[in-house]
Amino acid sequence: MSRTYWGGAVVAAMAVIAPSIAFAAVDAETAFVFNTFSFLIHGVLVMFMAAGFAMLEAGLVRTKNTAAICLKNVAIYSVAGIIFYIFGYSLMYTDVSGYIGSLSLFYDTSDAEKALLAASEKTPELIKSVTDNGYSVMSDWFFQMVFVATAASIVSGTVAERIKFWPFMVFVVVLTGVIYPIQGSWTWGGGWLKEMGFSDFAGSTLVHSVGGWAALVGAIILGPRKGKFGPNGQVLPIPGANLPLATLGTFILWFGWFGFNGGSQLALGSAADAAAIAIVYVNTNLAAAAGVVAAMAASQLLYGKIDLTMALNGAIAGLVSITAGPDLQSHYLSVVIGAIGGVLVVFAIPMVDKLKIDDVVGAISAHLVCGIWGTLAVGIFGSGSLVTQIVGIVATGVFVSLVSAVVWLALKYTMGLRVDPEDEFRGLDQAELGMEAYPEFGPRAQVM
Amino acid sequence: MSRTYWGGAVVAAMAVIAPSIAFAAVDAETAFVFNTFSFLIHGVLVMFMAAGFAMLEAGLVRTKNTAAICLKNVAIYSVAGIIFYIFGYSLMYTDVSGYIGSLSLFYDTSDAEKALLAASEKTPELIKSVTDNGYSVMSDWFFQMVFVATAASIVSGTVAERIKFWPFMVFVVVLTGVIYPIQGSWTWGGGWLKEMGFSDFAGSTLVHSVGGWAALVGAIILGPRKGKFGPNGQVLPIPGANLPLATLGTFILWFGWFGFNGGSQLALGSAADAAAIAIVYVNTNLAAAAGVVAAMAASQLLYGKIDLTMALNGAIAGLVSITAGPDLQSHYLSVVIGAIGGVLVVFAIPMVDKLKIDDVVGAISAHLVCGIWGTLAVGIFGSGSLVTQIVGIVATGVFVSLVSAVVWLALKYTMGLRVDPEDEFRGLDQAELGMEAYPEFGPRAQVM
Amino acid sequence: MSRTYWGGAVVAAMAVIAPSIAFAAVDAETAFVFNTFSFLIHGVLVMFMAAGFAMLEAGLVRTKNTAAICLKNVAIYSVAGIIFYIFGYSLMYTDVSGYIGSLSLFYDTSDAEKALLAASEKTPELIKSVTDNGYSVMSDWFFQMVFVATAASIVSGTVAERIKFWPFMVFVVVLTGVIYPIQGSWTWGGGWLKEMGFSDFAGSTLVHSVGGWAALVGAIILGPRKGKFGPNGQVLPIPGANLPLATLGTFILWFGWFGFNGGSQLALGSAADAAAIAIVYVNTNLAAAAGVVAAMAASQLLYGKIDLTMALNGAIAGLVSITAGPDLQSHYLSVVIGAIGGVLVVFAIPMVDKLKIDDVVGAISAHLVCGIWGTLAVGIFGSGSLVTQIVGIVATGVFVSLVSAVVWLALKYTMGLRVDPEDEFRGLDQAELGMEAYPEFGPRAQVM
Repeated sequence: MSRTYWGGAVVAAMAVIAPSIAFAAVDAETAFVFNTFSFLIHGVLVMFMAAGFAMLEAGLVRTKNTAAICLKNVAIYSVAGIIFYIFGYSLMYTDVSGYIGSLSLFYDTSDAEKALLAASEKTPELIKSVTDNGYSVMSDWFFQMVFVATAASIVSGTVAERIKFWPFMVFVVVLTGVIYPIQGSWTWGGGWLKEMGFSDFAGSTLVHSVGGWAALVGAIILGPRKGKFGPNGQVLPIPGANLPLATLGTFILWFGWFGFNGGSQLALGSAADAAAIAIVYVNTNLAAAAGVVAAMAASQLLYGKIDLTMALNGAIAGLVSITAGPDLQSHYLSVVIGAIGGVLVVFAIPMVDKLKIDDVVGAISAHLVCGIWGTLAVGIFGSGSLVTQIVGIVATGVFVSLVSAVVWLALKYTMGLRVDPEDEFRGLDQAELGMEAYPEFGPRAQVM
Repeated sequence: MSRTYWGGAVVAAMAVIAPSIAFAAVDAETAFVFNTFSFLIHGVLVMFMAAGFAMLEAGLVRTKNTAAICLKNVAIYSVAGIIFYIFGYSLMYTDVSGYIGSLSLFYDTSDAEKALLAASEKTPELIKSVTDNGYSVMSDWFFQMVFVATAASIVSGTVAERIKFWPFMVFVVVLTGVIYPIQGSWTWGGGWLKEMGFSDFAGSTLVHSVGGWAALVGAIILGPRKGKFGPNGQVLPIPGANLPLATLGTFILWFGWFGFNGGSQLALGSAADAAAIAIVYVNTNLAAAAGVVAAMAASQLLYGKIDLTMALNGAIAGLVSITAGPDLQSHYLSVVIGAIGGVLVVFAIPMVDKLKIDDVVGAISAHLVCGIWGTLAVGIFGSGSLVTQIVGIVATGVFVSLVSAVVWLALKYTMGLRVDPEDEFRGLDQAELGMEAYPEFGPRAQVM
Repeated sequence: MSRTYWGGAVVAAMAVIAPSIAFAAVDAETAFVFNTFSFLIHGVLVMFMAAGFAMLEAGLVRTKNTAAICLKNVAIYSVAGIIFYIFGYSLMYTDVSGYIGSLSLFYDTSDAEKALLAASEKTPELIKSVTDNGYSVMSDWFFQMVFVATAASIVSGTVAERIKFWPFMVFVVVLTGVIYPIQGSWTWGGGWLKEMGFSDFAGSTLVHSVGGWAALVGAIILGPRKGKFGPNGQVLPIPGANLPLATLGTFILWFGWFGFNGGSQLALGSAADAAAIAIVYVNTNLAAAAGVVAAMAASQLLYGKIDLTMALNGAIAGLVSITAGPDLQSHYLSVVIGAIGGVLVVFAIPMVDKLKIDDVVGAISAHLVCGIWGTLAVGIFGSGSLVTQIVGIVATGVFVSLVSAVVWLALKYTMGLRVDPEDEFRGLDQAELGMEAYPEFGPRAQVM
């Protein structure tokens, strides 16, 4: 069963059982309301992650690029939502042949729902025709839409402070309209990876690694910011301008992640679903907390200091790591999985630096490395097969990297990807937007 | 049927149908819980919009007026909530004669609910006496209360940076206690506009235009900030001091708007209501996204640059525009309506400037202009009559403008509305609060 | 009945009633879903209060200590969650003997839930074995966990700007793993205070005063910041560096408090529970609003100005004050209780200063003083006995103060509690973290 239809199946099962027993179970219409509401309210929490990414990235760039990164985050969420409405959702979830869905435009409410809403008398037949689906059509769309926006938000942080606005937005269109839905159809759309048994509950691979691969390829093709690497190859720190904002962004992401993972149960209309969601919430929180503690301990041991940004990345690392399998019933494993994620990010960030890849916010380490780790962990600790998990990771990585590379390169040799050095020095805010994020705070330290 | 009683009617209908069919429908008590919870959780989302307005406005004023605008936003939400408790709700929703409700003080839980809560044994009779109302009495009050606070928050942004604190708060008392409830009673209270068929699902006119009219009249009477218009009439930009905060504020507003529009379905206790809310969520998001994209495109075409604040205003414009009719079942219309809103705001902001009206945050353009547009759109695309929509817009505009003008002028000639020029130059923070919002960030650019 | 089992009892009662009546009531499984979801969604709101505390404190410290306070807040929430999982919850809620629970490690899902989740066919028997508990096991854990984090967050604000990171974290471990759970077991765990009739709905005493007592003792043992008190004993103001962030933090706390108080009804699965939660929401909001208005009025009368931070503390004061009894059915009493809280905080803050206790954010005044007031108010206005309320307040205060003092002193004479004067002057960000919160904003005013 695919990500989309799981809830419906459960509800159908309930409907069969319900009449035959003395014990009063959730009726089909009540289950429909629960399932729909779960998509909506969890979806709203995920939507707010757009604010989390915006604040995290606004806190970690320099002041001269802050308005530009805010603009990108607002634009990403907007464009992703429209593209996913026009054709993205359809490519991912409608009539998936195995490798891709169908291209039908303008996803829409079902006729059954329209008939029910239009009817002055809500007859049992009309209600049943709607509740047979298990949840409302557009609530599912809404929940899936906020996921694609997340994948795109990951990219903006990595390539910040030097990429041109419009080429970046073109990439976002391709990522959210083509790359994300196609690979998504393989698993959540019910395609070949799902058939093979690949397991990714809420998207360690499907969302976070996808964003991470696209970001990695983008960072390589784009090249590092001026001043990030010294003439002798040394790594020069470029500190973020507003760490309370980065902290806020991380907390918002954590907050939204309960929607991300909890809503991915895809149903709330039975005791089993409710209990499962509770387990997901707890594991999500334990993994994030363990990620923070592990990242703090690791940076204290390695560097003798605790870097705030390492602790924040530890939280995100823990969250990404548990996202493939937050339904584990052994909670201590969540602590283990999250803690390993927290350690991984502390090692990955300097390693990415050593490879001369300039990732402004650490998204490659937090989302790609830990996304891979989380997906493997399901094979190690969970019900999945490790081999299948590796197949899924590799297939997704190859596909996303290749297509991303083609798109990034095409943009590079047509519109151009990178602002010119003077504009980079002045900052994107003045160069591209003609404004300043903090016009009264100054004089600024001259950070190259 | 009025805004208040709609949910109850649906539930009553369900109760009639339920016993006679084999299909298991939502029972009356379950529907009551759903309806109540929808009011509460959606109301909490709307409550958070107070933080959104605070951050948006704090980001768009200058540093010297930042603490003052924060204080105003906290005070507005508080005062509005208390006034609406003491008599505002009653004026709007209780025994509406057509033009105004009754003046009964201290809105309260029903006797039926008190009896149920006090009973040690919850008998079916006690439960039924409560569930017959469809939702809990105070959940509805809570949801309506957060709306009035929104209307008042709109005003503070426009008149920022030069208005005195206490006269402003007096205006807020009149706005939330008299102006808003009276015009609200005409439609949501079941009064004459409702009778006529005026349609405003979640308040493009009733909330956003009301705030916008009050802001417009206030800005005219108050006059522009010193330095906003040059001696030869030229418009001088006064940039906001903290654009990431403005971005955060916009995202919070967007997040809260799902409660604003979604909760305005006023019921969740049936499949039809759940499906309707899902449609509302989707349309709300599509319109906001389209507003952003359209505002970006328009400002790129007109000015050759994308202003971040234009993109943010585009989001708000899209949201306000869809608020009168987010229940449209043709989702592409939401894209159209939101996009037109996004374009409107890009044209309206310089036009307001040309009229020498100083609107610090662009609230008149986003909330009034787009509020009118959204209300018209229901007449154009939705089920409403365009003539009736115009009647509602004009009636509300005339009433709110006139009463606001009287109150603003009365305040001007008694307490005085405007701080003296020296205090305006020093900033309201030092002049009125004796503090600074960012005491360590400086020296400040001397922006007049 | 204890905090934990209340919901279950209600549901059990429903199950008895349900079959015997014609009126269709909430069935047991639906009630289970409602109760579980209430714990989860309200718990998520409380979780976000961690962001609220972080922003409030980040806004009220000086720039040189901002990254450190952000780090502490992230670390507190993480450590509290892990400790409460390993043994804290068990000490508080499992087999409470009267004064303490049992020490069983790694709290876990029930066997009944595991069996249900593992079963391919969800039989009525399996469902009933789960729904008999009234709510899912881990949803309750999640909700209780976010409360312990709140208690710890209160402490960090008071002792900010001079405490060493690791000793502080050791204190957090003891507070969240030992002090909080033991005193919590007395009331919410069903221990001796519960037996006596002590009433604290959502934790004016159990959460807020506990944090306040620990903070008070810590502030005394730690001593004031350099420069807080002049050579002749005068109180020198040390203004917070970023008041919009403090405003945001307060709004986030207010937003989260609906989860804090609303979720403390511990059930949503009946009309009575839903109506009760609605009342709780309304009282919570009225008390906070009244706290703001009263604090503004009091500071205008006393000082001739309205301090923004006083208004913010007024909101928190109102919220803390109503937390012991937000289920009051006379809403005007919430206004009274919150307003008295708002006045108390305006008087308490200078009084704490006069006692030469340095509370950076005013947490002792807002959380301890108003926590005591709110607990007394239940004895005065509510159903509780005033004598019993006083016993609970005193017992908790003596226990928490004594144990906190032992721990703070033990830390002082082993690891050392306080950074050395040079580090305090440089700021904790550079001294302990090796970074700056706002590296580009400067030059900074030299605030001692």
